[in-house]
Amino acid sequence: MIVNDPEIVAEVRVAFELYEASLVAVDIPTLDELFWNSPHTVRYGAAQIQYGYAPIKAFNKTRVKTGIDRALTETVITTFGRDFATVSTLYTDVPDGQIGRQQQSWARIDGAWHVVAAHVSVIDTPPIERQDTPSATS
Amino acid sequence: MIVNDPEIVAEVRVAFELYEASLVAVDIPTLDELFWNSPHTVRYGAAQIQYGYAPIKAFNKTRVKTGIDRALTETVITTFGRDFATVSTLYTDVPDGQIGRQQQSWARIDGAWHVVAAHVSVIDTPPIERQDTPSATS
Repeated sequence: MIVNDPEIVAEVRVAFELYEASLVAVDIPTLDELFWNSPHTVRYGAAQIQYGYAPIKAFNKTRVKTGIDRALTETVITTFGRDFATVSTLYTDVPDGQIGRQQQSWARIDGAWHVVAAHVSVIDTPPIERQDTPSATS
Repeated sequence: MIVNDPEIVAEVRVAFELYEASLVAVDIPTLDELFWNSPHTVRYGAAQIQYGYAPIKAFNKTRVKTGIDRALTETVITTFGRDFATVSTLYTDVPDGQIGRQQQSWARIDGAWHVVAAHVSVIDTPPIERQDTPSATS
């Protein structure tokens, strides 16, 4: 299994950037399309527990604009083989002293990349702990 | 890509149950072994942001026993092909009115299953939203 094949990382980056742009623009059809349409999709939102695509799609309809100060930091894309990836990122449109965390698993299903599991949470900002060795960040 | 091949689900269930048992028993060497030894491993803990295996291993050393009332509920294992899986579960050893959420991505690397990304958070208990269609739960 090749980890971080540059071609696959580039593909996932495109999918992830589309997801983020859709989130900021509240582009609901694109958000719907990017989640895996399956009863197996799991989304732990900032304040939601959703099992299956149907409640995720229903939630997408209720989304509102992200904070004007939204930015992503410490985004790490890691790919495993040609069809699976994880994307972890911090986001900033949260109350002072806190940090948002978003981690997604992506899979290529029927030729297109989809979010198959997602977990979002907001916590009081802790120190960021790092490995000395550089990791693939963007 | 075969989703939820029963043979692969069974493998991941064994790995996940070992992880959970190790967490409860504070079996640090096993926890260390189950995380992917890579600078690319990401762990968003209940109160930690950890990039790379080194800080995760350092954190494992500091783990204390889980709550005596710890139980897992709503555990969903989903496998993608032979080498990738997500495991989402709720856990109960948190303050009254709250719920713990743990989501992991697992990959088979060099023949063994490892956690390659993990996100844990505790929130005020929301309603659990479900798809009507049954999903693979355990």
